[in-house]
Amino acid sequence: MAERARGRRPGTSGTRELIERAARRQFAELGFDRASLRSVAQEAGVDPALVKHYFGTKPQLLVAVAELPVDPAVIVPVLLEGDRDEIGLRLARLLVGVLGQDEPRRRMMSIVRAAASEPEAAEMVRSFISERLFGPVAARLDADQPELRAALCGSQTVGLVLARYVVGIPALADVSQEQLVSALAPVYQRYLTEPL
Amino acid sequence: MAERARGRRPGTSGTRELIERAARRQFAELGFDRASLRSVAQEAGVDPALVKHYFGTKPQLLVAVAELPVDPAVIVPVLLEGDRDEIGLRLARLLVGVLGQDEPRRRMMSIVRAAASEPEAAEMVRSFISERLFGPVAARLDADQPELRAALCGSQTVGLVLARYVVGIPALADVSQEQLVSALAPVYQRYLTEPL
Repeated sequence: MAERARGRRPGTSGTRELIERAARRQFAELGFDRASLRSVAQEAGVDPALVKHYFGTKPQLLVAVAELPVDPAVIVPVLLEGDRDEIGLRLARLLVGVLGQDEPRRRMMSIVRAAASEPEAAEMVRSFISERLFGPVAARLDADQPELRAALCGSQTVGLVLARYVVGIPALADVSQEQLVSALAPVYQRYLTEPL
Repeated sequence: MAERARGRRPGTSGTRELIERAARRQFAELGFDRASLRSVAQEAGVDPALVKHYFGTKPQLLVAVAELPVDPAVIVPVLLEGDRDEIGLRLARLLVGVLGQDEPRRRMMSIVRAAASEPEAAEMVRSFISERLFGPVAARLDADQPELRAALCGSQTVGLVLARYVVGIPALADVSQEQLVSALAPVYQRYLTEPL
């Protein structure tokens, strides 16, 4: 009755968590394409119909469990601290550093790959770029057209994930993090603060 | 017998062409996801098994019929003519102009979307970036690390296609071609000729 009083069916919460944990692991380690509602259900020890019942389609499951590898509420204030002329450098260091780690990189790859064909994942990318990370940074920098600036930063970032990790262009896949930061920092700086 | 002398089975050539024409139209107008071997076969008036026999899988069919919306053999020399300090502007104008046209834009969108999940399409994007368009341009500009420069230009370009057209970030979807050229030109210039 206590469960019902909080609007949940008995047992729901534990099962959902098992499914979410299995889904996070599979999207990260297998990627969006190879993970399936069935394989997630199997790992969680539940019936596939239950996964469908709670979460709907595979892209809806991705959206439900995907967490950005960085928390914008923490990261945006850190990025905005310090010299405005070095915001591009701080942003490039953050993104290249995050993408240099296995688990966050896989998570970003899953989201970008899914966004190419799934409207729900595309909406996550739009929100990440416009509302959560680049948008709030651009809005605080006192330059014209902050939405366009945020979108340009986002376009280079999703392009980097696609070209470096998904498509795997050799020269970009092999470059050191340090050199990639040097190449990208002035571009992010231009997009964020220089005349467009 | 004349057909056989040229190493073809009778009738093959006409049928392949019908299939190729139908596939090109469908990939361009429906996109990679909504086109299917079956729908292509239906439009070409042949059995789906024949499409599979000639072309294999759907991504293999895409690769067989996809033509770049620009011919690099024509475009690369044109890009290289003129002031080296304006190569970024010429490249931005070309790409934004091509993407401003319905049919070439759809073709680029099909290829980029497919590249996010299909190895054959990813290979097309790699070849387009490294060997056909950006690679040959970068190689002629007398700057260090031409492969990395080409890959960086490619990353911004696939990111633009993804962010502006596939994901559809509003500020980037709505911007004028002229303003987009102004924003991108200095970035392509930096990637191609300035210290990395």
